[in-house]
Amino acid sequence: MILTVVGVGLIGGSLGLAARRSGEFTVRGVSPRAALALEAGLIDEAFEDLGEALAGADLAVVAVPAGIAAQKVREVLAAAPEGCAVTDVCSTKAAVVEAAAGDERFVGGHPLAGAEVAGFENAREGLFEDATWYLTPTSTTSGVALEKVHRLVTTAGARPTILEAAEHDRMMAAVSHLPHVFANLLVGQAAAALGDRSIPVAGPSFRDATRVAGASPELWASIYESNADALAEEIDAAIARLEAVRGALGSGDVDWLRGWQEQAAGDRRRLTDEGLGGGPVREISIAVPNRPGVVAEIALALGREDISIADLALSPAPDRRSGTISLWVAEDRAGDAERCLAGIDLAAQ
Amino acid sequence: MILTVVGVGLIGGSLGLAARRSGEFTVRGVSPRAALALEAGLIDEAFEDLGEALAGADLAVVAVPAGIAAQKVREVLAAAPEGCAVTDVCSTKAAVVEAAAGDERFVGGHPLAGAEVAGFENAREGLFEDATWYLTPTSTTSGVALEKVHRLVTTAGARPTILEAAEHDRMMAAVSHLPHVFANLLVGQAAAALGDRSIPVAGPSFRDATRVAGASPELWASIYESNADALAEEIDAAIARLEAVRGALGSGDVDWLRGWQEQAAGDRRRLTDEGLGGGPVREISIAVPNRPGVVAEIALALGREDISIADLALSPAPDRRSGTISLWVAEDRAGDAERCLAGIDLAAQ
Repeated sequence: MILTVVGVGLIGGSLGLAARRSGEFTVRGVSPRAALALEAGLIDEAFEDLGEALAGADLAVVAVPAGIAAQKVREVLAAAPEGCAVTDVCSTKAAVVEAAAGDERFVGGHPLAGAEVAGFENAREGLFEDATWYLTPTSTTSGVALEKVHRLVTTAGARPTILEAAEHDRMMAAVSHLPHVFANLLVGQAAAALGDRSIPVAGPSFRDATRVAGASPELWASIYESNADALAEEIDAAIARLEAVRGALGSGDVDWLRGWQEQAAGDRRRLTDEGLGGGPVREISIAVPNRPGVVAEIALALGREDISIADLALSPAPDRRSGTISLWVAEDRAGDAERCLAGIDLAAQ
Repeated sequence: MILTVVGVGLIGGSLGLAARRSGEFTVRGVSPRAALALEAGLIDEAFEDLGEALAGADLAVVAVPAGIAAQKVREVLAAAPEGCAVTDVCSTKAAVVEAAAGDERFVGGHPLAGAEVAGFENAREGLFEDATWYLTPTSTTSGVALEKVHRLVTTAGARPTILEAAEHDRMMAAVSHLPHVFANLLVGQAAAALGDRSIPVAGPSFRDATRVAGASPELWASIYESNADALAEEIDAAIARLEAVRGALGSGDVDWLRGWQEQAAGDRRRLTDEGLGGGPVREISIAVPNRPGVVAEIALALGREDISIADLALSPAPDRRSGTISLWVAEDRAGDAERCLAGIDLAAQ
């Protein structure tokens, strides 16, 4: 299979290396510095021209900086051959999914890996080992495209998690972007409250909560902007919650404050106790009609139940009007997965 | 010197032990379990009656739970002899300072130490070693009272830092209480955004920022309540800042977002780079009129310049109408301290 990596930096280079080592891919890299990445052994072939790099490709990964990702996705879809699946690695998904304009070959992607150091010089095969890798197919994404991208992700050692782009962006706003906003607020308010004083020697909660304050201004300004809508909604929710706390403080309602603190304790427990197991998996096969979106629909339905797909394979019937989809899910979620799949009307639409 | 510790728990017991070991204090403890604290060697004498424990005392420390501290300060001031300095250990200061009603014997105190485990069974001499210990004299506090409390704090191995009660409470709201509020918000919003999903495997910023979410509901509800006014002001400020971020996101103002992120980076650097050195100190002596509040005024003026007083001694003149105050400050701040002291009109009021 021919994999074209568009943009050979830390992510693109690491993915190229992992794909090469698997023996399943011939890896082409296209970037101004592709020749150096070739010398470093990250790719099999170096290109400077996008069209040449995509000729005959089965799969293309757009791994360029977030600010130009949407435009690059458009260019790659315009130049890539008919059967070529296309994905990206942006940390927010709305803009790239919109740029793909319903193209059945496109699946949005976001690996949770490697933000500390950039550049292909830092690329390594194990970068994605056990990392969550979000995939955001839409109702127009073809099953074949999703299967190819899913396989690439598992080949890289990551755990694919499938969900809708809007849900992904909201989740990232809550779990990643809002903590950065709060960290910035905390240092700003502490600086104002402290004046010329030193910060108290004790104060681990403050240090923990502000570790990411002011992180990489250039990068984070573009992250906030790229997820502006979802982040704005989280900020609105935060303001509403702060006003509720403010109200309880104003009226001296200690019972409310205690209940709120208890609720937070419960939320925290639930969030941190949970995790993805790496246990045994079971295969589930179902017959599906060969229409656009059916695989994405299945994957999204499982994703909504928090069931991870460890692996996924499509076997089209010779007439190409139907086929079989095989899914591997955690043994202890297989029953849930079967119930969930039974509830989907696959003939619909 | 006779020290009466009112409430012999973790803080009171550790302070009693440190004071005993110094050889400068005879330590009386008063609490329902004082006899056990005596057996444990934390105090020299055990009392159950407050009046008896305070008879002839030079210094009293109220070390009871926050919820009853203000009432206990009132009782102790009513029962303590004329020359007895009184302090407390509450984490917020407005309520106890108000309870002291301008009594010249009272100095509010707050050691930043030992919240994890309670009870005198966990008391230890080194609990306050190098810990910041805030003191909040008012304009009515006598210099003698402040000197005694200051000496007790340094005897315990802590670093006294003098500031106004309102400033202390605002600082604690910003540096300690607001991080708890934000941590609660983050787990609540993440739980809402994630639904039935697991939290992403990667996400150290989220874990760091939410470590204190939902901490000890009973204790924290009372901390929020005890600092309600200052915390409400910080929350108002947070809402205003969130609305500014919201505005920049809504208008797509990346320059503003970048500038805001840079500002946070600067705030964080300034807050975390600073610290109190343990270097050489220099003595500064000045003649002062013997009027209430003059020592507090000096200490507050130095505190406003972030100059820590490593030690402090008063030498009243025989006529008791004037005296000398000796201060020890860090060598490299001595020049600043002298300039600051020269700017105070000691004859005023």
